[in-house]
Amino acid sequence: MARVGIIGASGYGGVQLVRLLLDHPLVEISYLGGSSSAGQSFGDIYPHLGWSLPIEDLSPPEIADRCDFVFLSLPNGLAARLAPPLLEAGCRVLDLSADYRFADLNTYTEWYREARSDQAVAQEAVYGLPELYREEIAKARLVGCPGCYPTASLLALLPLIKQGLINLESIVIDAKSGTSGGGRQAKTNLLLAEAGGSVGAYAIANHRHTPEIEQICSNVAGQPVILQFTPHLIPMVRGILATVYGELRDPGLVKDDLLTIYRSFYRSAPWVRVVGGYPQTKWAWGTNLCFLGMEVDQRTKRVIVVSAIDNLIKGQAGQGVQCLNLMLGLEETTGLPQRAFYP
Amino acid sequence: MARVGIIGASGYGGVQLVRLLLDHPLVEISYLGGSSSAGQSFGDIYPHLGWSLPIEDLSPPEIADRCDFVFLSLPNGLAARLAPPLLEAGCRVLDLSADYRFADLNTYTEWYREARSDQAVAQEAVYGLPELYREEIAKARLVGCPGCYPTASLLALLPLIKQGLINLESIVIDAKSGTSGGGRQAKTNLLLAEAGGSVGAYAIANHRHTPEIEQICSNVAGQPVILQFTPHLIPMVRGILATVYGELRDPGLVKDDLLTIYRSFYRSAPWVRVVGGYPQTKWAWGTNLCFLGMEVDQRTKRVIVVSAIDNLIKGQAGQGVQCLNLMLGLEETTGLPQRAFYP
Amino acid sequence: MARVGIIGASGYGGVQLVRLLLDHPLVEISYLGGSSSAGQSFGDIYPHLGWSLPIEDLSPPEIADRCDFVFLSLPNGLAARLAPPLLEAGCRVLDLSADYRFADLNTYTEWYREARSDQAVAQEAVYGLPELYREEIAKARLVGCPGCYPTASLLALLPLIKQGLINLESIVIDAKSGTSGGGRQAKTNLLLAEAGGSVGAYAIANHRHTPEIEQICSNVAGQPVILQFTPHLIPMVRGILATVYGELRDPGLVKDDLLTIYRSFYRSAPWVRVVGGYPQTKWAWGTNLCFLGMEVDQRTKRVIVVSAIDNLIKGQAGQGVQCLNLMLGLEETTGLPQRAFYP
Amino acid sequence: MARVGIIGASGYGGVQLVRLLLDHPLVEISYLGGSSSAGQSFGDIYPHLGWSLPIEDLSPPEIADRCDFVFLSLPNGLAARLAPPLLEAGCRVLDLSADYRFADLNTYTEWYREARSDQAVAQEAVYGLPELYREEIAKARLVGCPGCYPTASLLALLPLIKQGLINLESIVIDAKSGTSGGGRQAKTNLLLAEAGGSVGAYAIANHRHTPEIEQICSNVAGQPVILQFTPHLIPMVRGILATVYGELRDPGLVKDDLLTIYRSFYRSAPWVRVVGGYPQTKWAWGTNLCFLGMEVDQRTKRVIVVSAIDNLIKGQAGQGVQCLNLMLGLEETTGLPQRAFYP
Repeated sequence: MARVGIIGASGYGGVQLVRLLLDHPLVEISYLGGSSSAGQSFGDIYPHLGWSLPIEDLSPPEIADRCDFVFLSLPNGLAARLAPPLLEAGCRVLDLSADYRFADLNTYTEWYREARSDQAVAQEAVYGLPELYREEIAKARLVGCPGCYPTASLLALLPLIKQGLINLESIVIDAKSGTSGGGRQAKTNLLLAEAGGSVGAYAIANHRHTPEIEQICSNVAGQPVILQFTPHLIPMVRGILATVYGELRDPGLVKDDLLTIYRSFYRSAPWVRVVGGYPQTKWAWGTNLCFLGMEVDQRTKRVIVVSAIDNLIKGQAGQGVQCLNLMLGLEETTGLPQRAFYP
Repeated sequence: MARVGIIGASGYGGVQLVRLLLDHPLVEISYLGGSSSAGQSFGDIYPHLGWSLPIEDLSPPEIADRCDFVFLSLPNGLAARLAPPLLEAGCRVLDLSADYRFADLNTYTEWYREARSDQAVAQEAVYGLPELYREEIAKARLVGCPGCYPTASLLALLPLIKQGLINLESIVIDAKSGTSGGGRQAKTNLLLAEAGGSVGAYAIANHRHTPEIEQICSNVAGQPVILQFTPHLIPMVRGILATVYGELRDPGLVKDDLLTIYRSFYRSAPWVRVVGGYPQTKWAWGTNLCFLGMEVDQRTKRVIVVSAIDNLIKGQAGQGVQCLNLMLGLEETTGLPQRAFYP
Repeated sequence: MARVGIIGASGYGGVQLVRLLLDHPLVEISYLGGSSSAGQSFGDIYPHLGWSLPIEDLSPPEIADRCDFVFLSLPNGLAARLAPPLLEAGCRVLDLSADYRFADLNTYTEWYREARSDQAVAQEAVYGLPELYREEIAKARLVGCPGCYPTASLLALLPLIKQGLINLESIVIDAKSGTSGGGRQAKTNLLLAEAGGSVGAYAIANHRHTPEIEQICSNVAGQPVILQFTPHLIPMVRGILATVYGELRDPGLVKDDLLTIYRSFYRSAPWVRVVGGYPQTKWAWGTNLCFLGMEVDQRTKRVIVVSAIDNLIKGQAGQGVQCLNLMLGLEETTGLPQRAFYP
Repeated sequence: MARVGIIGASGYGGVQLVRLLLDHPLVEISYLGGSSSAGQSFGDIYPHLGWSLPIEDLSPPEIADRCDFVFLSLPNGLAARLAPPLLEAGCRVLDLSADYRFADLNTYTEWYREARSDQAVAQEAVYGLPELYREEIAKARLVGCPGCYPTASLLALLPLIKQGLINLESIVIDAKSGTSGGGRQAKTNLLLAEAGGSVGAYAIANHRHTPEIEQICSNVAGQPVILQFTPHLIPMVRGILATVYGELRDPGLVKDDLLTIYRSFYRSAPWVRVVGGYPQTKWAWGTNLCFLGMEVDQRTKRVIVVSAIDNLIKGQAGQGVQCLNLMLGLEETTGLPQRAFYP
């Protein structure tokens, strides 16, 4: 049994990790960490799981005594302080924040407005999208798990970019997220009274997930990719739908061609399902799946790809566990939920 | 007092019209028509208004005896049979369906798969978007009121197209609608159990509102416009948010320039509000307002315009009443709600 | 034009008052007060109304220079400090908090755990339920407007108690509220991510609105009434439904008898609508109406009354304006919304 | 592996059963039946599971060739025709409809307005509430699985009644259900546009689940129990919360006494969790759990018990699988989900 710790256990990332790891046959949760919630019991915050452990605020060496792997589920900026000593103490680290998603920390500093001095550690980190970096993740000491929007967006875009099917400057991603993506901290705009019964865009042209999507697309394209990303807040708890637009280079391609290309691209990706229709976010609810549907518009010569995930599972904690499986040499699917309840 | 009839009074268009016209100081509802609901009382179907009238199934001449103006709020295809005899009997007609939105009925037939033989009548019809066709509507005998998606989309696009600010082939409209847009007929996919807690796209690349948007854009541009339109179903009752993307011809334009252009374009449009931030659909709830917000992305050279309306008011019945006001020589704002409740 | 000020303008009570008073033909908003939001502009907080005024933090005499009437829309405990100097400065005051709802401040102190020293002022205050205290309100200098739950509960109970129809110890009120009742302060349990898609009870057997309901029932009954009140949080923005149970003293009564009794009791109450069916909260959305429906269960000898209001209008700001109308010698209905949008 | 068939596979009961049984280690789904959906593929109706089987319309003997156990998930009235021949053909049958929940078919006929001639079969049927009839279910050939409201209500009531703690004529059950309880048939009142953002009661004093609750309470009490049951429709997809009121016979009992009594009563019931706080329906989402919380009101001498289940799992299909486990001689918990996702 691998001994796994979770730091930041009281937030939504933490409770997802606990929920998922309790079902994992080869993992035991050996430590729950937190600073503001230290001293509390996990079961008091989340009584529905019928499971508990005290939340403690230990030092990295103490954590390393208890844990082989540590998940960091903290606000941006905190992982950068914790990961280096944890690595040094011998833990392997999976960070759910933005801190270790960027190979070039200048990009991080530009978008997150925070100076960083751990470039060496950051450079060692692997971007935790198993569909793209399976082998690197398996060997990594430090994984920077992708954000929820990038996961949905990249899985929709990668086959198009890898195969050179679209004009790279034509990409528009219009994304719709449930409000749990904003976390469990109380904010006025995330109140049910505010966000309920309403839809709006936010952070147009400057959402922090943009450079993360661009970085991976650029890597895959072999040239810089600049794209449009617009997030929207939807009156639902969980789920992200990304609607991705691109201009086809070859206007002769039809939907069936694309289905074939996508199915081939994701042949060995157990968590991606290419479907003939259009997915609903509900299909992915409570699972680690990403559903992809697509259409070619013969009139406009555009391809439209729709991507649906559970923002807290494939978009966060589930993907982290998928990475953990790879780091443990297990099947990617081990212990992860694959069947949604419906409706 | 103008005598106004409503045919199709039992649906959502009908109940909105009744609700709005009861507050109108210069109009009386003189007739409620319907076929399947004939014999029922309006107050039995919608008890909350504390108002009623029997729903009757009269012939056009009988209707003309009672009504100066007739709203048709019926499924597509039915207005084409009713409008000609009503016009002949002397009524002025406002149709909320798609039947009289197209100058060229070939377009209608191509997208709605229904043959039509009333080209002369259709050609007389005016497209009921007052922000564009104010004077034509005032004199019209027959108004084809726009659909909900076209209203939100066109009000966002018109200044850009009129001023030649964007590449016409670059337009992407990603629209999000509450489920009331699907009407009151019971359909499985519109059940709360199905649509609740989930988001999905539908009718990608072939939604019937596409040619309607393109027709008006083409008129304004003076050249054919082909654009991308993708509708999504959102788990909320009312509201449409259209997120509109276009590539700027002049990359030097900034957000403030656009705000100036939009405010100037809509200077005499009392129902359009250009705002510095990003509108929520809730801001328009229960009003005839369209809120427009915008951003320029210096990185991608795109403009992004966000448009929010109440799909059943500015997107349907309210716009009809706005047209009626013009036909009556009244202020466009007469009797229409302009202040949303919040939250 | 009466000059009206609102203190606590940035919360939900404040924005409802502004929204309602802007439609009032005989009132002008002459002052917006607040402490934490002082210096801000109302229009920056709530841009959807297209209206603004600065929020200022003035002293009671300065306020009295500008206002004939002042609404206090503040957390419990603050009105008790502000109302006495405002009255002294010559304003008439309508308080939306709990501070002036209790004739006996011991009850207040027992349930709200706060000492009070303004018994004389409290004793002068009139309970602002116009259906019961119409004439007292008209003459009052200080009105303590009822809470949202008490309004829905009392309007359902009053005819039963007044007519001695039920055993007083048998009353059970099971109430369901939208989350806007919790106000605009960000609290974790009111997040859409938490409250969405879920229902729960809270404050069972000890909600602070209980003694308020009991006080008025006792007054009407002429003897002490102790009752059961259980509130629930419902995943919707606005609305309260109170389901009220009581054992009939005369088991021969049938539903039609009760409808007659209720209609007679509320004959001159323009904001109460007794209906034959069962009301939905949506019927009252955005209006000052209270809908009452009822049933007699012949098997159990109980009467069940269902009461539906908009918690922020008849349950808060609208009722305040209804009281203001009485204080101004106007019709109770002046300027208040009476037709819901549906759906 | 037990071979299990599901008749009525296209509805919500069917898709829950499929979802649950796919996770069951000792069961295989050997037949999907349906009449209106015969010829369709399950995977076309519910693509999200990535699993399919054709839906066929076979005769009872053909079904018995393929199945050891058959679930009937059909509208009321149909199971009464199918169960007898299936039993005769050698299948053991679990019926999710109301047809076999009543020992006395006169009660059925009175409330469901349908004559029945299968009294002998009905009398053999066991009421499928394992917490009460564990041993009878294990040996049964025919199980009539309880409705969703009765499950939530009975689990809250049973300890009180069994221990004689409350006055039997004082029981009030105020229940709140998500709209999936109404099934997948399209009905206007279950549209998101209608049921969204609103709450209402229905079937007051005459809901068909009332006699089912009373029958079991009467059995346990050893005397006839008549009680009050009021269902409400809540704007959420899944979940039932039942708030149950009763007058305590011994006013000296306190909350801790009741917690002890409940925990003792449900000591060997793995699917019932007694908690110190108040459960949210979300805690049970996607699980077979029933959460019970309670309070004693010293002022009114009443006990209030709150019960939360997932209406489609513990309230329907999950309970069916729990019964199946007993019939197979397995642990009640085998293959059933016990951890909700949160939020």
